[in-house]
Amino acid sequence: MDLWFTEKHTDNVKLSIKVDRQVYSAQSEFQRIDIFDSLEFGRFLTLDGYMMLTEKDEFIYHEMIVHVPMAVLPQVKKVLVIGGGDGGAVRELVRYPEIQQIDLVEIDAQVIEACKKYLPQTAAKLDDPRVIIHEADGLKFVRSKKDEYDLIIVDSTDPFGPGEGLFTKEFYGNCFKALTATGAMVNQHESPFYPVDAIAMQRAHKRIVDSFPISRVYQAHIPTYPSGHWLFGFASKHGHPLQDFDAQKWKARNLKTRYYNDKIHVGAFALPNYVKRMLEEME
Amino acid sequence: MDLWFTEKHTDNVKLSIKVDRQVYSAQSEFQRIDIFDSLEFGRFLTLDGYMMLTEKDEFIYHEMIVHVPMAVLPQVKKVLVIGGGDGGAVRELVRYPEIQQIDLVEIDAQVIEACKKYLPQTAAKLDDPRVIIHEADGLKFVRSKKDEYDLIIVDSTDPFGPGEGLFTKEFYGNCFKALTATGAMVNQHESPFYPVDAIAMQRAHKRIVDSFPISRVYQAHIPTYPSGHWLFGFASKHGHPLQDFDAQKWKARNLKTRYYNDKIHVGAFALPNYVKRMLEEME
Repeated sequence: MDLWFTEKHTDNVKLSIKVDRQVYSAQSEFQRIDIFDSLEFGRFLTLDGYMMLTEKDEFIYHEMIVHVPMAVLPQVKKVLVIGGGDGGAVRELVRYPEIQQIDLVEIDAQVIEACKKYLPQTAAKLDDPRVIIHEADGLKFVRSKKDEYDLIIVDSTDPFGPGEGLFTKEFYGNCFKALTATGAMVNQHESPFYPVDAIAMQRAHKRIVDSFPISRVYQAHIPTYPSGHWLFGFASKHGHPLQDFDAQKWKARNLKTRYYNDKIHVGAFALPNYVKRMLEEME
Repeated sequence: MDLWFTEKHTDNVKLSIKVDRQVYSAQSEFQRIDIFDSLEFGRFLTLDGYMMLTEKDEFIYHEMIVHVPMAVLPQVKKVLVIGGGDGGAVRELVRYPEIQQIDLVEIDAQVIEACKKYLPQTAAKLDDPRVIIHEADGLKFVRSKKDEYDLIIVDSTDPFGPGEGLFTKEFYGNCFKALTATGAMVNQHESPFYPVDAIAMQRAHKRIVDSFPISRVYQAHIPTYPSGHWLFGFASKHGHPLQDFDAQKWKARNLKTRYYNDKIHVGAFALPNYVKRMLEEME
């Protein structure tokens, strides 16, 4: 058997992964959903042919999108996760006993169902009693919310297709409004390396900068995403991701992690000059 | 024209780059040398079919292998570069006026000739009067050296083929001997992500740890290398890459860089837990 999944990272770059077998395929109302087994990465999920997660490296993305804000914010009781139907962000969030409620807003219920059945590694905690699943458009869901969430995690797909609305100025403004006074929003921020991604990244970044007084970008090594150099955005009303980071408090929690640690927290905000220029040019 | 260069990162993962045309191809005494033009990465060099550098992202590798040690060491007058026939490391080194001599030891003179002709972006400074090119095996060259170099940069190929000797205990021991009392060795340290690379990386790391009292690993985002998560090793007799790093001194130099900066210097040494475990397990 010689079966390969190939993703075009640009028109001129492709990453191919040897597939053992396809375990799921469906066309939902919103997108094409596929799940494969591979030797190198274990099971992996694609949406419209774009890599969402692999069992081998999803811990990097999910730890970095959750533990960075959790180690900064003073007291997180109520969290909103937009997208993230795979359950990976929720899995990391439920490790915090102080969190009382997690609203997961996923537009595509079929993603949740598929992940529950075929990706138990990420979806395992979607049944936690603190998790409320809303089958809804995140863009619309957040419009009616005010001063309600201590943390909003925007675990979206790319800025085209179903996830497009989650990169708009209207959306960021509504997230700001939906946050409590000490709240923060974290989003997946695309990659700086390939111009086709970087242009969308810069545009979204400018909108976040315009919507929040504090906005910083951090990075992680995610080998199965285009270029392997992935960015996240941290935006808040007044909490600063470095000045308000308490390494001792994080360590005292004794949470076992495979990527994140207190040194990584600080190091992740140290961006290469070429990325800084991209972000500052837009400010 | 639909021409693609494909590199297998493992048996189960391939990265493919669209090629406009091949501009050079030769079989030297040591290896197959190829140079291509591409739309996405500009011109790029492969040895035995493995990506060595692209015009688009070589600055990341060369800045990180040179400026990290240069920002730590007190006074660097004499440098040994082993491998690095493309000239990228030399290009960054000649920016330091205090460096008086750079011995470049490249086993394959044909690599130097090809890069001088086809990759002027990296090879431009190989004619600097401080540079002495030795067409020799680095493993043998360093055997006779004692207390001579303030910095040794091991800019090798992978730990198989012509570069294999540059990952041996004998070689690291000889580098230690060849360094001055304040000297340090920096090497390209492979990637931690794919097991096939990580095993070689761990083995080499253990040998460096056994040969030097101080040994630390740092990382960079290099999109065209396997996984994009690339490691470097810093090993010294007593200089510490963080405690002896002087950010003010670096900034005062006013060297323009596209990746490296003082925050990156510190952040690059913040390794993910999964990488730390790999390195500590071997210590």
